[in-house]
Amino acid sequence: MDLTFLGTGTSQGVPLLTCTCRVCTSPDPRDRRFRSSVWLHDKDLSIVIDTSPDFRSQALRASIPKLDAVLYTHSHADHIAGFDDLRTYSVKNGNCIPIYADPFTLSRLEKAFDYAFDLKVRSPAYVCPEPHPITGPFSIGSATFTPLPVPHGSISTTGFRIDIAGQPRAAYLPDCAAVPTPIRDQIRHIPILIIDGLREEPHPTHLTIAQAIEISQDIRAGQTWLTHLTHQTLHAERDASLPTPVHLAYDTLRLTL
Amino acid sequence: MDLTFLGTGTSQGVPLLTCTCRVCTSPDPRDRRFRSSVWLHDKDLSIVIDTSPDFRSQALRASIPKLDAVLYTHSHADHIAGFDDLRTYSVKNGNCIPIYADPFTLSRLEKAFDYAFDLKVRSPAYVCPEPHPITGPFSIGSATFTPLPVPHGSISTTGFRIDIAGQPRAAYLPDCAAVPTPIRDQIRHIPILIIDGLREEPHPTHLTIAQAIEISQDIRAGQTWLTHLTHQTLHAERDASLPTPVHLAYDTLRLTL
Repeated sequence: MDLTFLGTGTSQGVPLLTCTCRVCTSPDPRDRRFRSSVWLHDKDLSIVIDTSPDFRSQALRASIPKLDAVLYTHSHADHIAGFDDLRTYSVKNGNCIPIYADPFTLSRLEKAFDYAFDLKVRSPAYVCPEPHPITGPFSIGSATFTPLPVPHGSISTTGFRIDIAGQPRAAYLPDCAAVPTPIRDQIRHIPILIIDGLREEPHPTHLTIAQAIEISQDIRAGQTWLTHLTHQTLHAERDASLPTPVHLAYDTLRLTL
Repeated sequence: MDLTFLGTGTSQGVPLLTCTCRVCTSPDPRDRRFRSSVWLHDKDLSIVIDTSPDFRSQALRASIPKLDAVLYTHSHADHIAGFDDLRTYSVKNGNCIPIYADPFTLSRLEKAFDYAFDLKVRSPAYVCPEPHPITGPFSIGSATFTPLPVPHGSISTTGFRIDIAGQPRAAYLPDCAAVPTPIRDQIRHIPILIIDGLREEPHPTHLTIAQAIEISQDIRAGQTWLTHLTHQTLHAERDASLPTPVHLAYDTLRLTL
């Protein structure tokens, strides 16, 4: 199973609109960040986590041929605004597309995209979501997802531990202000940790890079990839100064789980 | 006053996800179509009509430095999904951004983006919309907008006649199934007509290219630019076969009003 980063940027992306800072004008493609999202894929299975506002551009760039399911971490606009562009995959499949989200996130999706969820008004040409409320671990093909609820300001987001053929392989925690001990206990020694590393300065709803490193070291993660990055982080410079095995993720990076 | 096309594509854009047709794989940049939107701008004024899902990418490409107002034609996802990316312009201005839409469209925006419209829950870091329900002609700086309600399936969309310094200069009608006579009467001899020219085959909610040409000729429009185009229209080929003064619009095209 491979995991491709569709986006590694914070809510406004990088470059930030109207900004002329050194990161926003950097020629390094790793400093261009669509909003955070990942694609899990092998020859049989194709799953995205979150549909950012950039989803169509991300799916074109990655050449996503089909989608078997979509998982959501939470309902903030930078994680759901691309929902309508699932239409191609829904219509192509000729059936509804399974949507996995915690009940609160699902209720927010149903409100924002009522025309798609309300079967009474839905046009057959529109995306047809098949809601699956997350209440515990669930499997799709060879992948098992264990929900990891983590605090994110006034809400909780659902991170995921991804097990392949019964083995924990990765954890995806793109938006969190902390990782409480009971969650850490579920991802100790995880081979791949992908985690919120917003910026250097504290933020009320996100981890700093230093906090993300502390968590990686505490749980003895293997590879650790920071995501949800702002325009304050110049890839080449900051990546070089991170302690092993921590790195900055970047758009199009592909990992093998 | 200039008008720049931010996007000229139909709801799913061009290329269509997963499609390998000759238009979706065309090397001609005029065959790459973000969702339909235009930017009106001069040294003083900056206004966009609709915020498509591609809004951030469009605003980056056009280098939109500020926004004085946003106008909406209707609330379908391909015209509103980029709303959250107005945040930069709202925060940058340090105040709320005027949003002009007919009352139904405004009610749909308020439902889809309740976190921004509800001042009780809105974070100061989020986009702050200042709703202006459209009930008749209105002016912003040197531009006056006359709403042109036109049928679009089960809803009506609000096209706009754009007058500069009191002179009718352009009409923008990106989504319509017809243009009734009372609306035609308001845009006869308009120097620039921008109008829905979806495709060759009839569609229940959009104009065909032939229908758009008929309207242009009936109202004796000056330049006529077709927009909201699908992946069935190869720019170079179809543009060459259109009757004077009708052309296919394309992303980044800039007109002087």
